[in-house]
Amino acid sequence: MGKVRFEITTSLDGYIAGPNDGPELGLGEGGEQLHEWIFDLASWREPHGLAGGETNADSEMLAETIEATGAVIVGRRMFDNAQGWGDEPPFHVPVFVLTHEPREALVKGDTTFTFVNDGIESALEQAQAAAGEKDVSIGGGANVAQQYLKAGLLDEIQIHVAPLLLGGGVRLFDHLGDAKIELEKTRVIDSPLVTHLRFRVAR
Amino acid sequence: MGKVRFEITTSLDGYIAGPNDGPELGLGEGGEQLHEWIFDLASWREPHGLAGGETNADSEMLAETIEATGAVIVGRRMFDNAQGWGDEPPFHVPVFVLTHEPREALVKGDTTFTFVNDGIESALEQAQAAAGEKDVSIGGGANVAQQYLKAGLLDEIQIHVAPLLLGGGVRLFDHLGDAKIELEKTRVIDSPLVTHLRFRVAR
Repeated sequence: MGKVRFEITTSLDGYIAGPNDGPELGLGEGGEQLHEWIFDLASWREPHGLAGGETNADSEMLAETIEATGAVIVGRRMFDNAQGWGDEPPFHVPVFVLTHEPREALVKGDTTFTFVNDGIESALEQAQAAAGEKDVSIGGGANVAQQYLKAGLLDEIQIHVAPLLLGGGVRLFDHLGDAKIELEKTRVIDSPLVTHLRFRVAR
Repeated sequence: MGKVRFEITTSLDGYIAGPNDGPELGLGEGGEQLHEWIFDLASWREPHGLAGGETNADSEMLAETIEATGAVIVGRRMFDNAQGWGDEPPFHVPVFVLTHEPREALVKGDTTFTFVNDGIESALEQAQAAAGEKDVSIGGGANVAQQYLKAGLLDEIQIHVAPLLLGGGVRLFDHLGDAKIELEKTRVIDSPLVTHLRFRVAR
């Protein structure tokens, strides 16, 4: 079985979205800036159906995580904020959406969205079955990541730190309370637009 | 005139002290762990009057910042939490303490503490005069750093990211609101216990 991984881009002040995120503003005020490092990368463009792009340390890192991923778990709020990722979602692997309401599976392009309403452990079991030997990637948002982290279900965290201060919005690390979580730093890759910090979570 | 710098160690979740920091607990519950990377360094031990210690990338970085520093500004709460740094404070340069109450200057060892009660700009002017060609280091706490950052008075920020999650305590970046602050990453040094991220603040 693969690992359970969580990767996300944060500002230096720890936000994964700016103020007023939602279906209209997406990542909130200033939030798009977080991802400036990714849009020109060849390994980001390819799954989005775009040709060309840059090949560098960032694109290698991203290609590696995409290649390792066999299934993705996201929260319903993220699904809504991204407006379901349109007609050609960039995942190309099964996606499991945590929700409180039953809903039929949705097939768009080669991505199937399965809506799971019986908890994070059930979603993880289904995602692991779908991923086979590959990893399950927890795609976010923050609340979903916090739930998996607190439940001791994550093996690895990778934070892409963007060099900016958002001053408000959705904090990645919040509501963890006194859950005892030990981290071991396993890799740092620095590039001009972003710094990638990877940690193993002690189980 | 030198730069106005701010350096501090944070947890991966952005705390510079754990819950219940204060004169009794110092850096709060779990807060001492933040600084585990520093205590064995030769360049930390020397100003604390201790012999020996390790020489590595961390100690070089620390020696460089100590050498560049001509004066330090701290908040009164930090002064109290550190219990005035005892009889032999490790600064060895003039220290300016922001406070609301007038108080006589205090000389301990070769460190003079001057209490400034007419605002952050006055403290900076006094510190710059004392520092001469060297830098002024904003020593903290978080609230003091936030005030200087919001006022556009910082030239450089260096965050030492410790690979741990505190889950609560004093957040470094808070109360910044919609102050527009632009950062440019200028250096990253990674070592086993900590990652040093340095940024230039656009003025």
